Amino acid sequence: MNFASDNAWGAHPAVLAALADANGGAVMGYGADPVTARAEAALREVLDAPDAIIRFVATGTAANALVCAQLSPGHGRIYCHQDAHIETSECGAPEFFSGGAKLVTLPGEGGKMQPDTLANAIRRGAGGGLNGGLNAMVSITNATEWGTLYSPDEVAALAEVAHQGGLPLHMDGARFANAVAGLGCAGADLTWRAGVDALCFGGTKNGAMGAEAVVFFDPALAEGFDYRRKQSGHVFSKQRFLAAQMLALATDGLWSQLGRAANAKAARLADGILASGGTLLQPVQSNAVFATIPAAAHARARAAGAIYHLWPDKSAAGLDPVPIRLVTAWDMPDEDVEAFISLLTAG
Amino acid sequence: MNFASDNAWGAHPAVLAALADANGGAVMGYGADPVTARAEAALREVLDAPDAIIRFVATGTAANALVCAQLSPGHGRIYCHQDAHIETSECGAPEFFSGGAKLVTLPGEGGKMQPDTLANAIRRGAGGGLNGGLNAMVSITNATEWGTLYSPDEVAALAEVAHQGGLPLHMDGARFANAVAGLGCAGADLTWRAGVDALCFGGTKNGAMGAEAVVFFDPALAEGFDYRRKQSGHVFSKQRFLAAQMLALATDGLWSQLGRAANAKAARLADGILASGGTLLQPVQSNAVFATIPAAAHARARAAGAIYHLWPDKSAAGLDPVPIRLVTAWDMPDEDVEAFISLLTAG
Amino acid sequence: MNFASDNAWGAHPAVLAALADANGGAVMGYGADPVTARAEAALREVLDAPDAIIRFVATGTAANALVCAQLSPGHGRIYCHQDAHIETSECGAPEFFSGGAKLVTLPGEGGKMQPDTLANAIRRGAGGGLNGGLNAMVSITNATEWGTLYSPDEVAALAEVAHQGGLPLHMDGARFANAVAGLGCAGADLTWRAGVDALCFGGTKNGAMGAEAVVFFDPALAEGFDYRRKQSGHVFSKQRFLAAQMLALATDGLWSQLGRAANAKAARLADGILASGGTLLQPVQSNAVFATIPAAAHARARAAGAIYHLWPDKSAAGLDPVPIRLVTAWDMPDEDVEAFISLLTAG
Amino acid sequence: MNFASDNAWGAHPAVLAALADANGGAVMGYGADPVTARAEAALREVLDAPDAIIRFVATGTAANALVCAQLSPGHGRIYCHQDAHIETSECGAPEFFSGGAKLVTLPGEGGKMQPDTLANAIRRGAGGGLNGGLNAMVSITNATEWGTLYSPDEVAALAEVAHQGGLPLHMDGARFANAVAGLGCAGADLTWRAGVDALCFGGTKNGAMGAEAVVFFDPALAEGFDYRRKQSGHVFSKQRFLAAQMLALATDGLWSQLGRAANAKAARLADGILASGGTLLQPVQSNAVFATIPAAAHARARAAGAIYHLWPDKSAAGLDPVPIRLVTAWDMPDEDVEAFISLLTAG
Repeated sequence: MNFASDNAWGAHPAVLAALADANGGAVMGYGADPVTARAEAALREVLDAPDAIIRFVATGTAANALVCAQLSPGHGRIYCHQDAHIETSECGAPEFFSGGAKLVTLPGEGGKMQPDTLANAIRRGAGGGLNGGLNAMVSITNATEWGTLYSPDEVAALAEVAHQGGLPLHMDGARFANAVAGLGCAGADLTWRAGVDALCFGGTKNGAMGAEAVVFFDPALAEGFDYRRKQSGHVFSKQRFLAAQMLALATDGLWSQLGRAANAKAARLADGILASGGTLLQPVQSNAVFATIPAAAHARARAAGAIYHLWPDKSAAGLDPVPIRLVTAWDMPDEDVEAFISLLTAG
Repeated sequence: MNFASDNAWGAHPAVLAALADANGGAVMGYGADPVTARAEAALREVLDAPDAIIRFVATGTAANALVCAQLSPGHGRIYCHQDAHIETSECGAPEFFSGGAKLVTLPGEGGKMQPDTLANAIRRGAGGGLNGGLNAMVSITNATEWGTLYSPDEVAALAEVAHQGGLPLHMDGARFANAVAGLGCAGADLTWRAGVDALCFGGTKNGAMGAEAVVFFDPALAEGFDYRRKQSGHVFSKQRFLAAQMLALATDGLWSQLGRAANAKAARLADGILASGGTLLQPVQSNAVFATIPAAAHARARAAGAIYHLWPDKSAAGLDPVPIRLVTAWDMPDEDVEAFISLLTAG
Repeated sequence: MNFASDNAWGAHPAVLAALADANGGAVMGYGADPVTARAEAALREVLDAPDAIIRFVATGTAANALVCAQLSPGHGRIYCHQDAHIETSECGAPEFFSGGAKLVTLPGEGGKMQPDTLANAIRRGAGGGLNGGLNAMVSITNATEWGTLYSPDEVAALAEVAHQGGLPLHMDGARFANAVAGLGCAGADLTWRAGVDALCFGGTKNGAMGAEAVVFFDPALAEGFDYRRKQSGHVFSKQRFLAAQMLALATDGLWSQLGRAANAKAARLADGILASGGTLLQPVQSNAVFATIPAAAHARARAAGAIYHLWPDKSAAGLDPVPIRLVTAWDMPDEDVEAFISLLTAG
Repeated sequence: MNFASDNAWGAHPAVLAALADANGGAVMGYGADPVTARAEAALREVLDAPDAIIRFVATGTAANALVCAQLSPGHGRIYCHQDAHIETSECGAPEFFSGGAKLVTLPGEGGKMQPDTLANAIRRGAGGGLNGGLNAMVSITNATEWGTLYSPDEVAALAEVAHQGGLPLHMDGARFANAVAGLGCAGADLTWRAGVDALCFGGTKNGAMGAEAVVFFDPALAEGFDYRRKQSGHVFSKQRFLAAQMLALATDGLWSQLGRAANAKAARLADGILASGGTLLQPVQSNAVFATIPAAAHARARAAGAIYHLWPDKSAAGLDPVPIRLVTAWDMPDEDVEAFISLLTAG
C-alpha cells in the first residue's frame, strides 16, 4: 500500500516492450533515429498539432526548467502558483537554467491561479521598471499539485490574460494524462486550442521509466532549444530508448487509458474516505486525494504498512483528524485501495 | 556497417532484463530504492572503493559537467586536453553548470596531456592573479578521444602534478570499460590508486541505454552534490530504472567483458587497415581507430553503406588517403567488421 | 522638493575632495594602492573589527548579490523579508550571481522579520529534502525598506536563530549609517557583536557618488570573494577612486553625521505630517517616512512640484488620504522640508 | 616611472570638474537625469551615430561581458583572438554573464585576427552541430592587447566575414581613443561604418576615474539590455556621476586629445628603445610598447624604480635581452619617459 507518489510505481509492460523493440542494430545517435521520429509524430497526432516541435528529456524538472529558460531570460519574471512544482520541488532549477529568473508566486484555491490574480500581478510587474525584472511567462500545472483540474475554459481565460500581457503560457503536465482523463476532453482542447504555448507532457508518472516530452506548439518558440537541452546534459546519445517510452504511451491511447486507471483508484479512495467519516480537502479530480482521516484510522493504516505523506508535512502528525495526501497509479492493485479503505473503517 | 560511434549501437540483453527485474510493485522514488542501493554497492565493489560516493545520471555530459561544477567554482580554471570531450562536444555544459569556469586547453600527442605541460600551465595559472581565474581542477579522459590510453603510471604522474598544485583530478570515463580492458588492470589501479579523485564511469557506451555513474572517491568532495544534481534535472524520480542498468553492467564483470569485446573489434579493424595499405594515425588501444585509407577504398566503403566520420571533419572528403574515425561496439557483428575490411582490399 | 529617494541627492564635498586628493601620479591598479589600504583600515576602525575583510564595489545591488553568491550555492535557500531589497528591487541579481538560489520570503510587520517566523521557515527548509534546496543564509536589511530599525538585540535574536540552523547572517546596510544614527549605538553593536557575519555598508545613499563596502567579519567567509568580484566586473582598475569615497565617509565620523542629518529631516517631516492631520504608517526611525496625507494636501504638494512616490505604487492615486513614501537626504535643504510641511497645512 | 598600465594613472581635471558640476541638488536616479542624457547625446555625436543606444558602466570587464551576454546565448560560441582581454583577463566574466558561452580563440600576429582564420573557424563552428555550440558573435579589440591597430578596412573585412556567418561584431575599445588617435580616422569610420555592431568605448584608461560606454549601433540589439545591466549590479543609482565622466571626455574632443597624448609618449619610448639597441616586438601604433631591452638596461631601470611588466610574465626575468611591456598614459610626465630612455643608454 504505497500512496506516497505515482512515481513510486513502475513502468507499463508496453514500455518495456518498446525498449526491446527499439534495441538491436545501429541507428544514428542524439535523436537522429527512426524511433524518435515515430515518437514525435505520434505525439503530434495525439495533440492534433502537426507543426509542434517536440523534444524528449528524462525528468519533469528538466522539462519544466528548460522551458522556463527558453521562454524567460535571466532577468525575467515567471508567474506561477505558490504551490507550483517549479517553485516548491525543483531545487531552484528554473532559476538555474534561466540564469536567475524570478518565480513570482500567486495564491489561489486548490492550487489554481485565478485570471484576475494573474492580471493584477502582471500589471504590477509591468509597472515595476527594472527593479522587479521583465515580465516573461506564465506557468500553470495541470493536473495541479492539489489534484484539481483547470478546464479548457479556465486555461483559456488564463491564456488570454497572459497573452494580453505579451507573455507565453506554459503548462506543466507532469500529470497531463490524468488531467485529460479527468476532464474527458482532447489533449488539444486543454492545450493549444486554449492558448497554451508550451507543454511538458509527462510520461514518467503515466507509466514510463523516465521520459517527458517538451512540446512547443509554435515552432518559433523552440529556436535554439536543442542547444539548451544539449548544454544541460539532457540530450541522450542513445535517444531511441527515451523516445521509445513515449512512443509506447502515445500508441493506441495507452497514455489516456493509464490516466483513467489511476484516476479511478483515486475516486474510489475518495468515496471510501467520505464513507468512513473522513473529509476531502480538495475535490478529487485526478489521481491525488487530499483528505483528513481520523487519527485512529491513520494509526491503523500506518500499523498495516500503508505509505503516504502527511500534509503539508510531518508537523501534522499530532492532529486529529490527520491531513494526508494519497496518490494513485495505474498499476496500484485495487486490493491495495480496498485494503486501505477497510483500514479506515476497521475501527 | 555503422562505425559512427559506439552510442549508435544498442543495449545489452542483461540491461533489459535488469529493467524488467526492477519493475513491478512500489518503491520509494528519487534513489531511495533497493535497486539503487545494490547498484551503488556493486560499483563500489567493482572499484574496490568501499567509501566512495556514487550517483547515477543518464548522460555523459551531465556526469562530466556536474563534476566540473562540483570541483570548480564559476571563477575556476579547469585544465584539460584541447580535444577533451568537455571542451569540444558538450556545448559549454561545464561552463554552464559551474557558472562560468574556463577550460584551459592543453596540447598533447594522441589526446594525452603530458605532466610537464600540465605543470607549466598550472604554474602560469597560479601566477595570473585574478585575471585568469582560480586554479580549480584537472580533467583527463580515459580512454582518450583519440582511442589511446593513459596507463596507471601515467595517470599517477598527472595526479601528482595536479595535487601538488592543490587541484583534484577528474577522469572522464565515458569509455572507462574500454580503458580498463585495454590495459588489463583493475579499475582501482586506474583511478583512486593512481590519484583520481572523481570518475565518470560510463555505462551508455558500454551497453546501457543511458546510464553513467559519478564516483567521488573522497566523500568530502561530494558535499552538496545531490542538490546540484537535483537542480539540474538529473535526479530521476523512478531512479531504480537508471540504477538497474548500471547494476547489470557491474554484475559478473559484464562491463569488462563488453569493453574487451568492443576493443577486439577495433583491433581487428586496425589489422585489416594496415594489411590493406592504410595507416594508423594513433595506436589502437581501445575501441576507436583513427586511420587513413585510400580514397578508392573509402569510395567503395561508402558505396556499400558503411557509416563513419571523416576526421576531423568533412573537409577531409577530398583527400587521398582519407583520414577517418571508426568506433566499435560490443554488439557490432563481426560480419560488419570483416565486410568493411573486405571493402578496403576489394579493389 | 525631491523626496523620491536618497539617491536622488548628491555627493558630499568631502567626497569630491577625497577624489581630488587621490588623483595625481601613478599607483598600482585593482586595489593595490594606498588609498584603498587606508579606506579599508578606516572602515575596520569604524566597525571596531580589526580582522574584517573589506572590499569595495560601486552599487548596492552588486554588494548584496555578491554576498549572496558568496554565502549561498546555486541550490541554496536565502531567507529574507518579503519586502527585502534583494527580493523586490535587484532584478534577480542574487539569483543570477549565485547561480539560481531561491529567496524564501517571510512576512513581518514594518519590514522586520521575527525570530519565530525565521525559525519556522528554517525548520521547514531543513525538512524539505532536495526539493526546496539547501538552507544557506539569512539576509536582513537595516534600516529596513520601511524605514524601521532592528535594534542590536533584535539582530542578535535573529542571528541566534540563523546560527542555530547553521546559517550565516547578512545585513544589507544600504542605509546602515541611518540605522546606526537612529539607534545611537556603535556600528559594531549592530553587526558583529550581534552576530552579523557579513555587512554591506552603504556609501552611496550616505553621501558618496557610488561606493559600498562589503565587510566579512570572519575572514574565512571571504575565501575566493576577490575572484567573484572580478568575474562580475566589479573590480575597478583605478580603484583608488572608489576607495577614496568610502575613506571620506569613514573619516572623522562623517558617515555618522550625514546619517543623523538625514534622519533629522525625516523626523521633522513626520512631525509636520502628524500636525497637519496625516498619519504615519510606520514609526519613523531613520530617513524614510511612510505616511498618509489628505488628498487635498497631496494635490497641493504635487502642484508645487514636490516629488515623492505613492505607496506601494501609483494605484494609490485615487485614495483619500493618500499613502506616500518620503525619503530624506543629508543635503536636502531644510527649506524643502518646511515648504512641504507648509503645503500640507496650506489648505 | 610607472609603465605598468594606463590604469595606474589618474583622472583628467575636466573629469573632476564634471563631477563637481553634476553635483548639487536632486535629480532622478538610475539614469533618468539630465547629465546622463547629455552624455549619451555627446557620445552619439562623437560617433556620428544618432540612433545608437548608449549605456554607461564603470568597468571594462562589465562592458565587455554584458555585450557578450547580450549577443550570445549561454550555448553560444564567441570568436576572439587568443590574447583577447575577454579571454585572458576577465576571470571568466563573459562565460558567467552569458550563462556558459564558449570563447573560441584564434591565433593571429600582433594580436590581430585575420579574416580567413575567422572564416575558417566560423565554418567549422557552423558544421559542428550541437556539440560545439551555436555560432553567436565575433569580438575584436582595438587597439589590440599588443598595442597594434586594426584599420577601418581591416575591421570591415572582419565584419564582412562575421556578417556572412550571421554573427554580429563587437569591438572591445578599452583603448578606443588610442586607436582612433593612432589611425587618424573618425570614430564612425572605425566602428559602424566598418560594420561594428557593438562598441565598448573605454573611458577609464582614457582619463576617467571609472567609466565605460556600451554602444549598440543597431537599437534592436539592445533589447532587454537595461535589465541585464541591472541584474548584474551595473546600474548606478546616482548615475549622473558615471555619465559626467564620459561627458567630460566627449566634450571638445578631450578623449581624442588624451589618446594622442598617450600615443605620443609611446612613440617617444619606441624611438628611445630603438636608439639604445633595443628591439620592438610589435609596431608601436597606440600607447603600448612591446620591446626587448638589454638585461643591463633592465637592471638599471629597475634599480631606478621604473615599474613595468616583463612579458608575457615573470619567467622572462632571466633573459637577455629582456622582453617587456610599457604602457603610457596621457598624464605620464614627459620627464618619466625621458628618464627611462636615459636609463636605457646610461650604461
